[in-house]
Amino acid sequence: MMRFERYLAGLVIVAGLSAPTLGTAQADPSAAIKAVLEKQVVDWNKGDLAAFAKGYKNSPDILFMGNPISHGYAGMVERYKTNYATRAKMGVLSFSELEVQPLDPKFATVTGKFHLERTAAGGGNADGYYLLVFEKTADGWKCIRDSTTPMTTPKK
Amino acid sequence: MMRFERYLAGLVIVAGLSAPTLGTAQADPSAAIKAVLEKQVVDWNKGDLAAFAKGYKNSPDILFMGNPISHGYAGMVERYKTNYATRAKMGVLSFSELEVQPLDPKFATVTGKFHLERTAAGGGNADGYYLLVFEKTADGWKCIRDSTTPMTTPKK
Repeated sequence: MMRFERYLAGLVIVAGLSAPTLGTAQADPSAAIKAVLEKQVVDWNKGDLAAFAKGYKNSPDILFMGNPISHGYAGMVERYKTNYATRAKMGVLSFSELEVQPLDPKFATVTGKFHLERTAAGGGNADGYYLLVFEKTADGWKCIRDSTTPMTTPKK
Repeated sequence: MMRFERYLAGLVIVAGLSAPTLGTAQADPSAAIKAVLEKQVVDWNKGDLAAFAKGYKNSPDILFMGNPISHGYAGMVERYKTNYATRAKMGVLSFSELEVQPLDPKFATVTGKFHLERTAAGGGNADGYYLLVFEKTADGWKCIRDSTTPMTTPKK
């Protein structure tokens, strides 16, 4: 019995030692990055904007492409608080067609679509698609660039 | 005179040796990347779509965010040939507010705006803004991700 336990302990040590060398180049970050985005959806739909914002890197360098372009985490948090001041305005968020394209061990791009289900009073439904850049930080994968394009819903 | 020339030759060798070590981490790729985009504008305005396309990496992995998303160099070249079949449709392109945000020595993002000056017959003027990802390849900096958002011109 002792011998078997020692054998298992040996396996764990070998696995632990080889992970950093094997893992760095080959690890696919897709699951980790999708988990960040899926957590953002859950936090949004709880009405927890502060938790949602943690999907972004807390840095003045992050940017949101638009007209005009916006820089920085603090400004983003303020805009979300202003634009989504009520649960009705937040609506129910969902992401679809999420795809991760790794660049190197520290950076990846992500493409996907969003849908916001809202009452007319909340502003009505909204749809769009996005290209994001994610960085592997000490605090996990975080979004550092966000280019979201609204889709115009055809009028009936 | 010989001595002076030898002194100069020594300086050149020292500069050549230190460039790779000093340069890798600190070199700002902004000028090199802006030069690629500025060359694209010149090529476009000459009507040379094949030269314009060389600003993108010749790879099936490059992607153009849109609805739907498009992948690959070959498809991009075909779309440009179809959508900009005449000089009138190509119009006169200009970029503005170009900004490069380096990620690491091999990758950078770029933000900017485009304006297409066209006759009514060519399709009329068009404007938009974009977030691009550039990669430093063996063939120089090339665009590998393109998220361009059209701006709707307010109706008069």
